[in-house]
Amino acid sequence: MTRGQMLYEGKAKRVYATQNPAEYIVEYKDDATAFNAQKRGSWAGKGATNNAITAHLYPQLEAAGIPTHFIAKLDDRQQRVKAVTIVPVEVIVRNTAAGSFSKRLGVEEGTPLSRPVVEYCYKSDALGDPLINTDTALALGWAEEKDLTRIRELALKVRDFLVPYFAQRGVNLIDFKLEFGKLADGTIVLADEISPDTCRFWDAQTGEKMDKDRFRRDLGGIEEAYAEMLRRVTAPV
Amino acid sequence: MTRGQMLYEGKAKRVYATQNPAEYIVEYKDDATAFNAQKRGSWAGKGATNNAITAHLYPQLEAAGIPTHFIAKLDDRQQRVKAVTIVPVEVIVRNTAAGSFSKRLGVEEGTPLSRPVVEYCYKSDALGDPLINTDTALALGWAEEKDLTRIRELALKVRDFLVPYFAQRGVNLIDFKLEFGKLADGTIVLADEISPDTCRFWDAQTGEKMDKDRFRRDLGGIEEAYAEMLRRVTAPV
Ligand SMILES: Nc1ncnc2c1ncn2[C@@H]1O[C@H](COP(=O)(O)OP(=O)(O)O)[C@@H](O)[C@H]1O
Ligand SMILES: Nc1ncnc2c1ncn2[C@@H]1O[C@H](COP(=O)(O)OP(=O)(O)O)[C@@H](O)[C@H]1O
Ligand SMILES: [Mg+2]
Ligand SMILES: [Mg+2]
Repeated sequence: MTRGQMLYEGKAKRVYATQNPAEYIVEYKDDATAFNAQKRGSWAGKGATNNAITAHLYPQLEAAGIPTHFIAKLDDRQQRVKAVTIVPVEVIVRNTAAGSFSKRLGVEEGTPLSRPVVEYCYKSDALGDPLINTDTALALGWAEEKDLTRIRELALKVRDFLVPYFAQRGVNLIDFKLEFGKLADGTIVLADEISPDTCRFWDAQTGEKMDKDRFRRDLGGIEEAYAEMLRRVTAPV
Repeated sequence: MTRGQMLYEGKAKRVYATQNPAEYIVEYKDDATAFNAQKRGSWAGKGATNNAITAHLYPQLEAAGIPTHFIAKLDDRQQRVKAVTIVPVEVIVRNTAAGSFSKRLGVEEGTPLSRPVVEYCYKSDALGDPLINTDTALALGWAEEKDLTRIRELALKVRDFLVPYFAQRGVNLIDFKLEFGKLADGTIVLADEISPDTCRFWDAQTGEKMDKDRFRRDLGGIEEAYAEMLRRVTAPV
């Protein structure tokens, strides 16, 4: 498995072709961005941590009945994945009010939601990933109805797996962002990553933030928080 | 029917109690606001025009199977309505991209949508009526599931009535905002108004705007546009 052409460089990862058109290599960078890339940073170990956390979780999600793009971890920074066409609709699942949701709706951070909220955003850096709904995705041709139905079902299944998984490890899963892709045969699979970049993790005892909000809000201790999350995710319970 | 206490003064209307607790009087003002009340204006005849247009349309919507709050027009500025508890979720129905939708999603104004888009906003002046979805309305207790289902059904029924109604009168109905309320017995009814304040109307021949965008965008000819819309709405076809 040798790396071919770089197909895409994103804010936190690079995607490479391989000899096999059905497989890509994803490389996790140490770069972090926030607020639509207006804030930029980087710290040693970030890429490796996110790669390791994703590589630890995705096979377990597969085992729980959620098809994913993940094939294998290659090394510290890289993983082999199935090549997909990313559905340009990001999916946010919220258990507790926080971040943009709290701000937009005047709901205090930390307010538990009486039921999970699934939000959809149009994946567009130029537009700042605006909030949309399924009607809009359908009307503008960003996704098909059957795919959106499947994506919602899978997103809630991911939640049903992750919430107790993290709870058992002393972490309150506040919200998380998922991306889905389509295989050549049309199958919808979970793609991208699940990491402290894409989830809000609050320590169940202290409420301390253990995710990218430490970077967004200049709270310090970001390397330690990511390392602690990797430890908790991978430690036996 | 004498007017009792003023219960609410909004940006464009006042709501008064009556001797009958199940009925209110709505008075249409000449005031206009835009951009979350940052822009303010007023012109003679605005209240009377919106009152007349709403009073002309609501009985026809009733006849088409859409329960409404409307009882009767009282005079130039006033109408009797059923007292409802307004569901704090505004409903926007879009046929063609325009306004905030175009801006947010980078879709040129005037792009036809391949299917109607129903959007929900949390009715809150303080927050600027933020876009939400039905999950959010349910999780935060702003509406019940059966009511949201009914509201969507009625909103699309209103669209199915209004689109050909306006088309026959040389007007392209681009989008519109509805409010729904609950009667004491729990019935969901269409409340508030349907007027050039709450719809985008484009002349079918010239594309000229005949609605509040003339005020929002300082296009001039606002009194004439509202008067022309009243003429078209009420003229026999
Ligand atoms: N299996 C896959 N096949 C193709 N593209 C993928 C796959 N998994 C993730 N991607 C895409 O690769 C990119 C990963 O880089 P990232 O830095 O996260 O980008 P972004 O800045 O767009 O978030 C994302 O655009 C993501 O949608
Ligand atoms: N039948 C009704 N019963 C009670 N309230 C109503 C009814 N119809 C409309 N309303 C409410 O009355 C107010 C009308 O005033 P308006 O100037 O449009 O207010 P706003 O500035 O909130 O849009 C709105 O808040 C609307 O929700
Ligand atoms: Mg990304
Ligand atoms: Mg109003």
